[in-house]
Amino acid sequence: MTDCQGDGEAAKSLMELYEKLTAQGDKIRALKTAAAEKAEIDAAVQLLLKLKMDYKEMTGQDYKAGCPPSENSVVPNNGPAADGDDDDDGDTVDPWNVSSTNAKGVDYDKLIVKFGSSKIDKDLVDRIEKVLGQKPHRFLRRGIFFSHRDMHQVLDAYEKHQSFYLYTGRGPSSEAMHVGHLIPFIFTKWLQDVFDIPLVIQMTDDEKYLWKDLTLEECHHYAVENAKDIIACGFDVNKTFIFSDLDYMGSSPEFYRNVVKIQKHVTFNQVKGIFGFTDSDCIGKISFPAIQAAPSFSNSFPQIFGERKDIQCLIPCAIDQDPYFRMTRDVAPRIGYPKPALLHSTFFPALQGAQTKMSASDANSSIFLTDTPKQIKNKVNKHAFSGGKDTVEEHRKSGGNTDVDVSFMYLTFFLEDDEELEKIKQDYTSGALLTGELKKILIETLQPMIAQHQERRKQVTDEMVKQFMTPRPLNFKA
Amino acid sequence: MTDCQGDGEAAKSLMELYEKLTAQGDKIRALKTAAAEKAEIDAAVQLLLKLKMDYKEMTGQDYKAGCPPSENSVVPNNGPAADGDDDDDGDTVDPWNVSSTNAKGVDYDKLIVKFGSSKIDKDLVDRIEKVLGQKPHRFLRRGIFFSHRDMHQVLDAYEKHQSFYLYTGRGPSSEAMHVGHLIPFIFTKWLQDVFDIPLVIQMTDDEKYLWKDLTLEECHHYAVENAKDIIACGFDVNKTFIFSDLDYMGSSPEFYRNVVKIQKHVTFNQVKGIFGFTDSDCIGKISFPAIQAAPSFSNSFPQIFGERKDIQCLIPCAIDQDPYFRMTRDVAPRIGYPKPALLHSTFFPALQGAQTKMSASDANSSIFLTDTPKQIKNKVNKHAFSGGKDTVEEHRKSGGNTDVDVSFMYLTFFLEDDEELEKIKQDYTSGALLTGELKKILIETLQPMIAQHQERRKQVTDEMVKQFMTPRPLNFKA
Repeated sequence: MTDCQGDGEAAKSLMELYEKLTAQGDKIRALKTAAAEKAEIDAAVQLLLKLKMDYKEMTGQDYKAGCPPSENSVVPNNGPAADGDDDDDGDTVDPWNVSSTNAKGVDYDKLIVKFGSSKIDKDLVDRIEKVLGQKPHRFLRRGIFFSHRDMHQVLDAYEKHQSFYLYTGRGPSSEAMHVGHLIPFIFTKWLQDVFDIPLVIQMTDDEKYLWKDLTLEECHHYAVENAKDIIACGFDVNKTFIFSDLDYMGSSPEFYRNVVKIQKHVTFNQVKGIFGFTDSDCIGKISFPAIQAAPSFSNSFPQIFGERKDIQCLIPCAIDQDPYFRMTRDVAPRIGYPKPALLHSTFFPALQGAQTKMSASDANSSIFLTDTPKQIKNKVNKHAFSGGKDTVEEHRKSGGNTDVDVSFMYLTFFLEDDEELEKIKQDYTSGALLTGELKKILIETLQPMIAQHQERRKQVTDEMVKQFMTPRPLNFKA
Repeated sequence: MTDCQGDGEAAKSLMELYEKLTAQGDKIRALKTAAAEKAEIDAAVQLLLKLKMDYKEMTGQDYKAGCPPSENSVVPNNGPAADGDDDDDGDTVDPWNVSSTNAKGVDYDKLIVKFGSSKIDKDLVDRIEKVLGQKPHRFLRRGIFFSHRDMHQVLDAYEKHQSFYLYTGRGPSSEAMHVGHLIPFIFTKWLQDVFDIPLVIQMTDDEKYLWKDLTLEECHHYAVENAKDIIACGFDVNKTFIFSDLDYMGSSPEFYRNVVKIQKHVTFNQVKGIFGFTDSDCIGKISFPAIQAAPSFSNSFPQIFGERKDIQCLIPCAIDQDPYFRMTRDVAPRIGYPKPALLHSTFFPALQGAQTKMSASDANSSIFLTDTPKQIKNKVNKHAFSGGKDTVEEHRKSGGNTDVDVSFMYLTFFLEDDEELEKIKQDYTSGALLTGELKKILIETLQPMIAQHQERRKQVTDEMVKQFMTPRPLNFKA
């Protein structure tokens, strides 16, 4: 009855994976017995973790030594699975939860190993600079976009004058957007400018309807309101298509066809493993990942790319969205499409500290795009977690810690000048710069930035929103 | 994380149901011990079966005495669940399988009890005659449409001059349609004529893509080809909209909005219980039931009904489709829509006998709409299962059995004259009519019927298909 492909293949490679895991476990025990170097053991453990994660994705189950996978083994209800399982690093990262027990925030190096992506290292940043003939964005220079998949492939193609396109998105769950929400858009705008390529932005209003206690009308309204903030980031209307799923699904048979294609090639077991869905989840949630996957394929947008299905997609997004695109990359070759490439960002920390990301549902954790200069000043002064010492005397003597200081972290996101930032770091670490002074620099960076955003947003008319959100040809040189 | 409604309520009513089941089991044991009347025991067993089916639908699990439901109990992989579970009546009826171990075919009275629908009894047939002021269709007179949900409600509304609309469909898995496929359409055409109301016909090409080893293009092609056969049934273009899911989903934001609404209100547990999906099924299958449900709500067709969501829908279909609409009726009040009413038909038997329905994938079981007069003659003579005796002498002496004779069954579907049919029955039962003579009557009934269909289909132009399949206003008096 079912011909959802890949299960036969999957079963074979699953057993291979199980055997690899068993062998890796044996290897680690042997290393420990032999009192091997810590670095060697650590590397072996990291590989084990990665294999365990692959196993969980394929089966929806944790690997258990001595219990080989059976095709019909009962899959237990499990929570979101993208976070580490039995490796208690204290980090939880999936599309719905981000938290860490560490004041420095999530251990991103470990996340790269877990997710199986690649680090954006100095070589890649240098290559981007060389290819573009200009300085890479501060988010690249400072490791804010820290991880990627297939970015070298994209650059290879670009050097051969083959085009690609950008895809990013937003889940519109309220009118309130905060500065953290801007990170992927600020970076995407830069990518659009330097590569001169089309961009599609998905507003997942259907997702928000499925996950939140909101009506369809509310979610769609938030999609349009959020689009105004996105447009205010300065995107080129001739190269940018913003769409609400609730609108576009019902306006594009080609988009729906890709959704159905993806839905045929992903089983419940797989989404259970990747997203932690349970049998009590509604069928809308279970099938939604295909809708976030579909814009990764160029023929979902015939108005832009015609019938071409071979144009590669590059997705800048926060790392918590990676599970969707791991799934997409798994499906792509099976339906004859290229895998999307990815650029992953770190999270934008809450004012209270990097243990959680900024959240629109907690007003005190966030600087909103609608905040007044006074509100910004008060929030930073009152809530921004400080890496400084308790007294001025102590601070002058032993200095502050920029690794946990939220004001400093925010400056790494928004202060353009590398030398100025470095000087602030040195002065704060030495104790020359006090916490109040550091906060003042941040306040004076944020206030004009937010004010300018508000000014640009005011100039976004309904007519402009309509234009950005109308399916239409874009400037695109194939 | 989840706010898919109803699970809290469901848990409470689930425990009540479990307790009812336990009590009913006790009652049956008591009746048997007391050597009660067979009729009384039978009635109690039928109620038990119905309760068991409700239980399985709610939990995806079989009821087990002594094992109360737990919220997180592991749901086993189970086959299609709409057939009886441990009551071994030999009948299997779900959207993908129909079979019986009885030569008379499925026990439809038992199916009514299992599915919880109502019998189309003489009272209802008489009422339809009275309301319409004309003779009911032979499918009603002869119990071919044998079961319903809320048909009295539809008639009440009709008598108060409130309108309703018709919805039926077809899964286009090949170009080959057989006479059995016409049954719902012949009846729906009659309903459209006598009630003078709009009709929507869903071609589930997306479903066929998900279930079969076919491409999207093939499924869509079959949808258009099958639409020609449907149009040839004589539907009024001013009152009929035929749509391919692959086209219409991408042409109607309102349709997609209803799909998402339904998907939010149905859990995987529910579709597991109703349709027997397993964790290995693809997420497309799991979410598809919402797509078959959506046309039951009038605001899925704004081009016909504007924004009205209160126009009741009447669905004529074969009984195997009922699981979809039980789900739909369960969801409807929770999203503020009226429940669709239903009229269920029996299956059209295979030439080889009523144990299975006619199947397009078995050429010898089917009379195709493309068959020549000669092919029809040969198939009936060679394959139609006979209720006659082995020799003419024996047949003349003790007569044939029309209950299992496929040629006679087919005549009940297609021979309009009640008196003629009754005479054939008497003559065959008495032995006056021989099997060869009965088959000749069937052949002479089918040959002109199929030839006329072919003639009408030839006249269906691409332009006409396009017209029927274009979303547009229909004649509709609100």
